[in-house]
Amino acid sequence: MLIVMTAHAGKAEIDNVVRVVETLGFRAHVMPGASRTAIGVTGNQGAVDLSHFENLPGVSEAIRVTKPYKLISLDLKADRTVVDLGDGARIGDGSLAIVAGPCAIENSKQAFAIADVVQRSGAKFFRGGAFKPRTSPYAFSGLGEAALKILADIRKEFGLKIVSEALDDTNLDLVEKYADMIQIGARNMQNFTLLRRVGRSKLPVLLKRGMAATLEEWLLAAEYIMAEGNYNIVLCERGVRTFAQHTRNTLDLAAVPAVRKLSHLPVIVDAAHGTGRSYMVTPLARAGVAVGADGLMIEVHGRPEEALSDGAQSLMFDEYEQMVREVRQIHDVIARNGAV
Amino acid sequence: MLIVMTAHAGKAEIDNVVRVVETLGFRAHVMPGASRTAIGVTGNQGAVDLSHFENLPGVSEAIRVTKPYKLISLDLKADRTVVDLGDGARIGDGSLAIVAGPCAIENSKQAFAIADVVQRSGAKFFRGGAFKPRTSPYAFSGLGEAALKILADIRKEFGLKIVSEALDDTNLDLVEKYADMIQIGARNMQNFTLLRRVGRSKLPVLLKRGMAATLEEWLLAAEYIMAEGNYNIVLCERGVRTFAQHTRNTLDLAAVPAVRKLSHLPVIVDAAHGTGRSYMVTPLARAGVAVGADGLMIEVHGRPEEALSDGAQSLMFDEYEQMVREVRQIHDVIARNGAV
Amino acid sequence: MLIVMTAHAGKAEIDNVVRVVETLGFRAHVMPGASRTAIGVTGNQGAVDLSHFENLPGVSEAIRVTKPYKLISLDLKADRTVVDLGDGARIGDGSLAIVAGPCAIENSKQAFAIADVVQRSGAKFFRGGAFKPRTSPYAFSGLGEAALKILADIRKEFGLKIVSEALDDTNLDLVEKYADMIQIGARNMQNFTLLRRVGRSKLPVLLKRGMAATLEEWLLAAEYIMAEGNYNIVLCERGVRTFAQHTRNTLDLAAVPAVRKLSHLPVIVDAAHGTGRSYMVTPLARAGVAVGADGLMIEVHGRPEEALSDGAQSLMFDEYEQMVREVRQIHDVIARNGAV
Amino acid sequence: MLIVMTAHAGKAEIDNVVRVVETLGFRAHVMPGASRTAIGVTGNQGAVDLSHFENLPGVSEAIRVTKPYKLISLDLKADRTVVDLGDGARIGDGSLAIVAGPCAIENSKQAFAIADVVQRSGAKFFRGGAFKPRTSPYAFSGLGEAALKILADIRKEFGLKIVSEALDDTNLDLVEKYADMIQIGARNMQNFTLLRRVGRSKLPVLLKRGMAATLEEWLLAAEYIMAEGNYNIVLCERGVRTFAQHTRNTLDLAAVPAVRKLSHLPVIVDAAHGTGRSYMVTPLARAGVAVGADGLMIEVHGRPEEALSDGAQSLMFDEYEQMVREVRQIHDVIARNGAV
Repeated sequence: MLIVMTAHAGKAEIDNVVRVVETLGFRAHVMPGASRTAIGVTGNQGAVDLSHFENLPGVSEAIRVTKPYKLISLDLKADRTVVDLGDGARIGDGSLAIVAGPCAIENSKQAFAIADVVQRSGAKFFRGGAFKPRTSPYAFSGLGEAALKILADIRKEFGLKIVSEALDDTNLDLVEKYADMIQIGARNMQNFTLLRRVGRSKLPVLLKRGMAATLEEWLLAAEYIMAEGNYNIVLCERGVRTFAQHTRNTLDLAAVPAVRKLSHLPVIVDAAHGTGRSYMVTPLARAGVAVGADGLMIEVHGRPEEALSDGAQSLMFDEYEQMVREVRQIHDVIARNGAV
Repeated sequence: MLIVMTAHAGKAEIDNVVRVVETLGFRAHVMPGASRTAIGVTGNQGAVDLSHFENLPGVSEAIRVTKPYKLISLDLKADRTVVDLGDGARIGDGSLAIVAGPCAIENSKQAFAIADVVQRSGAKFFRGGAFKPRTSPYAFSGLGEAALKILADIRKEFGLKIVSEALDDTNLDLVEKYADMIQIGARNMQNFTLLRRVGRSKLPVLLKRGMAATLEEWLLAAEYIMAEGNYNIVLCERGVRTFAQHTRNTLDLAAVPAVRKLSHLPVIVDAAHGTGRSYMVTPLARAGVAVGADGLMIEVHGRPEEALSDGAQSLMFDEYEQMVREVRQIHDVIARNGAV
Repeated sequence: MLIVMTAHAGKAEIDNVVRVVETLGFRAHVMPGASRTAIGVTGNQGAVDLSHFENLPGVSEAIRVTKPYKLISLDLKADRTVVDLGDGARIGDGSLAIVAGPCAIENSKQAFAIADVVQRSGAKFFRGGAFKPRTSPYAFSGLGEAALKILADIRKEFGLKIVSEALDDTNLDLVEKYADMIQIGARNMQNFTLLRRVGRSKLPVLLKRGMAATLEEWLLAAEYIMAEGNYNIVLCERGVRTFAQHTRNTLDLAAVPAVRKLSHLPVIVDAAHGTGRSYMVTPLARAGVAVGADGLMIEVHGRPEEALSDGAQSLMFDEYEQMVREVRQIHDVIARNGAV
Repeated sequence: MLIVMTAHAGKAEIDNVVRVVETLGFRAHVMPGASRTAIGVTGNQGAVDLSHFENLPGVSEAIRVTKPYKLISLDLKADRTVVDLGDGARIGDGSLAIVAGPCAIENSKQAFAIADVVQRSGAKFFRGGAFKPRTSPYAFSGLGEAALKILADIRKEFGLKIVSEALDDTNLDLVEKYADMIQIGARNMQNFTLLRRVGRSKLPVLLKRGMAATLEEWLLAAEYIMAEGNYNIVLCERGVRTFAQHTRNTLDLAAVPAVRKLSHLPVIVDAAHGTGRSYMVTPLARAGVAVGADGLMIEVHGRPEEALSDGAQSLMFDEYEQMVREVRQIHDVIARNGAV
């Protein structure tokens, strides 16, 4: 931490800050400057609450330096994490992971038709919502366990690994029973009870970024999970909320290199929620692969205009197939240049 | 809903949209314009998924008109809701409700000292966290049931009504046992499982706005609660996330008149989280009362620099007392002018 | 400045950073910490470009400490600035300055009718646009010099001080000829050529905050003006752009205490542009006074529904008069409590 | 436009709205709905000021439908615009345009060394600032005409087309004298005087998006230029301001397909300002090409740590050369798939 004094702070105020720093067990380094004094604080193992200092007389501001996360950090583990679901379904090993499927599972026929297209595209992960968080209490909120049973049938039939979202403990017990990977949605990124619960799960976790989450908050949400013992986490950038109105969310692709610089965890890009408009999905999926993500999450629907939720951001079958062709070619470029 | 066609859309495309509208059971009103045609859609009772239309050939955009909320709306109930906790502790009746106390309950002595100051200020509500949502898994997260017991003692000793946050079902059972009002925090504003659960509680609910929630999303969160049968809801503006760095959040006081225009629910302002800096709390508390809020939420702490959480935004006892004096005088002005 | 090394940085990398710091003529203070080393840099008179350091091997981040502004700072001048236009028209002296008038001057009759209401309310400043920055090239952009002549007539007739916006050098020559105070609008807050030009004007300047300006950028825009020799500057908070859709801008009232803490310049609040909706103007004007602003900017229009620009945020005459009554009573409370 | 009445609005209020609509010369289409009435308005050639209606009794809201831009729209001109500077330097023809160079021209030697690398990479455009908009009045603001002379020498020596920014009329005269393309920076995107002036220039214009500009505002800025007769405009996405702190700006790549859907103008991506961090430039440049942009703007500097401005976001020579190799391969994929 660095404590910056005001220009008018005198010796008594500086000494008082030093005293408080030392009382808390840290070491103070006084640095007189041209116009004001700064005091470096070392010796703190974790984050110190800045409020201990900001209100002391003569203090202008306190600046945090030590990062509050540990386990997810490259400082702790320099090798990149590979999340391996078996049967060649891996995220983070340099291959391009594609997680595709409908927003919500609506019925068996719809789901099987989509799974067939997904499997033929070479994707190894199938997504489909059984429990849907909906802004309105009157909107379709998923088929629940019935959807999970359909998903389990798809796994058996097509060999795809199943990714499905859980909203609470009850959901989670069911998702664990039927699926291969638990999705934590943007609205639950700081549902700390749920994070702790998936931290005790044996299944890997796909952790979406909250719609107004800073990079640090997102990484700390992963830290919550990891602190409970679950190391198999995949981060998913899905767009953040801004003033922009041409998209539902503003996809923040710079988050991918930013995560890479700090963490060993894999990171994928959700081009469906990240845009909210089907005509943008393929361009942004290409961009997500080009920026160096470990994979994509994509919504596919045979007839988007009939989808019970999020149809506006789903791809038709032929659009999906063309998108996969394009992103694989881009991934080849990336891999050839050693940029994944 | 209004469907706007592109300038180049022809009769066939317009007829097709009309057909889809009618197939869904609605009525289409074709309005040819100077440069393009618009199609009004009426007959829908609730919100229609725009995605049914946005991808149809020749459609430029679909604009939603019908509001998706019902129960919280002034359209349904023109009289303003008064949330009454008994013993004169009311929110929404034209008086100024003050909900004050420490961020977290740390020990009995601290809590009693603060409660004494709060009660003497004339406030009728005491807040104190037993379960704290913390960004980092390594930060102090509250004393749990021990804190709730202290709060129950405070109610007995000082006659203050107790407001405390619940993060999940287990917490909630305990909060219901000891407290008078359940707080749902910003991070849980779209924790729909929790919203449904408090919707079945007998206690009133204080619903904070999410840090990136639109007005509509916030009102729909209240609608979730009300749809389960709990009509005693108080909204709480606590700042939103923006690019601004001089505050922790940007307090959006325009939300108060905006809520008033649409809903019968009372709305209060949290000047502590809304700023994150103690020197701003009193000015923004005054502004919150001046804008017409039904009350304030304030953090008080005898020695903020020793607080285990959020000390930077707490008021000292004398600052709190002066703040209460000022806001009461402003509330008198507001009341005298009929502007509450 | 503080340079934070990565956890893995070794002695050679630390020594190299120290060498670069010293080469630039500064002093380096090495502070070994529990997990990483930080290096304090002192001796820099102004802001140092962080990029000199961020890309050096072993550097994790560089954190700026020295503030880049000087003249506008309380560090330089502890007494608050009072901008005095003569005849008792002052901003920053503890009185409540009201700057009111139509968005744009449309004709002499309209302007005189409004000026009559403004003067009778006790306000001392009249605003009216002669040159309007409009998002669309096809929208009404002001009457130009003809409007300024009307404004000069109003000054003569009503004794009000005239505030009007300039968009470029040519405008500015005219505004200087006819008005008493130059307004620099939000879109021009970083038009540095214009800032330098008004810095050489003899008239005081009303500097609006840019729609996405940080506090620091806003203060530096004032620093540009002051660096040219014009010390008579009034800052004006007018709302910032956020995701919120219930207002045109999100009025950031916390900017008022934030400016107070750093600068000696007066600051007023524009409740018209800050909300964009007439029903919100009075509540937010009250809040602006309650938060401690030195004054208000308000749009008044006899018949807002006929205004050629910005009618949606203008007050009717009776609304304006009631608003003035309310804010004066609130200002009395503020003044009585020594909180201006 | 669509006017939505409140649920309680009666026949008299509806009739009144219809009367006002017709008085303004438009046609009203009354559409009674399940819970409220909407009134479609047609016949308006351009944008109507919504404020004419929003304050009428019984009106809930007015929703604009007609787009306010004309000339830049695909509705007007279905063929994509190609901006051709001669000698094969084109933007918008399906090739990948690379505009590279230092942030600011610092001296002849630096500029020539960079130009040599840029030319050998196959890029056809050289950028370099002569006039720099700087947030602080004390920062380096460019060499002015001396820099332009160096740029003219570079054109002669390397055959590169010169792109340089103008901040005001005086600058612009000089930029027109020496350069091939005028850059309008983010801070001047709504400097309408400057937009009109470049609209009368014979040189093509590179128009950067403002840091908080909506898509519509950006397109209207281009409309300003085009309305004066200059049709050679290239749009440049350079990131927007958000709460995110891991980048200087949040690069909004969805703006590229969004522009494509509405306008015939070419659009390029500035990966330097769009991120502000050199380690992110190459990944985001790849993403910009993958999303379908017509080109890239890139900052190159031999020794970024010595750059007088923006060194933190510049590439070293070898980083630049590798970046060009990667983006060309991605552009080949895009072109092969017909996705530019």
